Amino acid sequence: MNPVNHQTTPGAPVRSGVPEHGRVPKYYAVKARLSALIDELGDGGLLPTERDLAVRYGVSRETVRQALRELLLEGRLRRRGRGTVVAGPKLEQPLSLASYTEGVRRQGRRPGRGLISLDRFPCTEALAPEVGAARGEPVWHMERVLLADDERVGLESTYVSVARAPRLDADFDPDSSFYAYLHDRLGIVFGDADERIETVLATPREALLIGTPPALPMLLLHRLSRDTDGRPLERVRTLYRGDRFSFTTRLGRQD
Amino acid sequence: MNPVNHQTTPGAPVRSGVPEHGRVPKYYAVKARLSALIDELGDGGLLPTERDLAVRYGVSRETVRQALRELLLEGRLRRRGRGTVVAGPKLEQPLSLASYTEGVRRQGRRPGRGLISLDRFPCTEALAPEVGAARGEPVWHMERVLLADDERVGLESTYVSVARAPRLDADFDPDSSFYAYLHDRLGIVFGDADERIETVLATPREALLIGTPPALPMLLLHRLSRDTDGRPLERVRTLYRGDRFSFTTRLGRQD
Repeated sequence: MNPVNHQTTPGAPVRSGVPEHGRVPKYYAVKARLSALIDELGDGGLLPTERDLAVRYGVSRETVRQALRELLLEGRLRRRGRGTVVAGPKLEQPLSLASYTEGVRRQGRRPGRGLISLDRFPCTEALAPEVGAARGEPVWHMERVLLADDERVGLESTYVSVARAPRLDADFDPDSSFYAYLHDRLGIVFGDADERIETVLATPREALLIGTPPALPMLLLHRLSRDTDGRPLERVRTLYRGDRFSFTTRLGRQD
Repeated sequence: MNPVNHQTTPGAPVRSGVPEHGRVPKYYAVKARLSALIDELGDGGLLPTERDLAVRYGVSRETVRQALRELLLEGRLRRRGRGTVVAGPKLEQPLSLASYTEGVRRQGRRPGRGLISLDRFPCTEALAPEVGAARGEPVWHMERVLLADDERVGLESTYVSVARAPRLDADFDPDSSFYAYLHDRLGIVFGDADERIETVLATPREALLIGTPPALPMLLLHRLSRDTDGRPLERVRTLYRGDRFSFTTRLGRQD
């Protein structure tokens, strides 16, 4: 394979490029120009209308729409009322045992959570080792929508055995941190956790609950946590809007 | 908001659901049935043709195609020749200073890397603190495609100052680990690194180089690493196919 002839800035990152055969899809050329316009306008800047952009770039409105769609999915733009504005940077959530609440607050945003459902059900075979309950024993499934400044940004499912948190339905405020509840009310301290991150598409139900366009790429975090005695504590699946979140971590040599 | 009435298995994870208003998009109902079929067939199992599936489910081929498209994007299916087969599980890459090579090998796959380009360019303002070079000093940009069992699965850009690795163009084998090279040849030891993970769409150029459908959701890792003296070492941007990779980490209390 021959080295690429960089047609853009020397050393420009890989994401800037254009196919080597030199044929740039028309929508992508528009996307590149919109990207420069976004940088000029800055956070919160209002984009011209689709029609104006089509005239400006000499392309069809459909072509403009395709470019806008990708920039919206990537979180560079967002809808505001009937207009389209430049989005701020993605929220950077640390990969740590710190709660969602802390992570969002650290970035000067106001965290919130809304209860979707709280159910008891008999523990399944697969879940048993993950929550430290026997098959058939009662388990809580709590589903909450995650908010940042009242915007819906994610959806979280927590599974915990009823034996661990018997009065969850009575004395837990769903708009607060579950970790703070376990610690302050029940004296349970988190020891460690295994996490797995992947990208998935939002299902229609998820898209509806979070208020995103269907098939938006999402970041899905799976967490299995244990208390300081190493006993399984909870299983959590958290779905974050891919256009609003990134995750950060510091790696040391012990890894 | 009223609690959801779970229509599926009790305690089924959030991703199984159906919109609360009860209207399931037709393609999504097909996707759910295909998902069950995928579980039945198991890894490598061959899916019936689009036409057969359309007849079986009593829907149009377009509807089947939409469901298949999402399952392909999510990595549950993959194309093999002219057919479509059930994909194996995603590769789990540990978030650690271990190299790509080690991560893939640990899962019994054969890692490989192919050189796309190796350029020298004058360090930009933004890159200067990240690679520990002054503005205008020469910096390497090495771009490699990542392979697992000869399948293209990612694309990696490495930026390192020429002063750190003066003979990179002469004595580095691009199909080997850059970390092993730094360590074995130059005696440079990694100290720590900051990583950020986000989901992005593949650009046309990236899609071409990795051989993916355009606009496939990808996982993008940004890494800034330092040596054991805390001096900046390299900046890396690695793009992984979202349908083939997930990332794992273990969180401890110190976080």
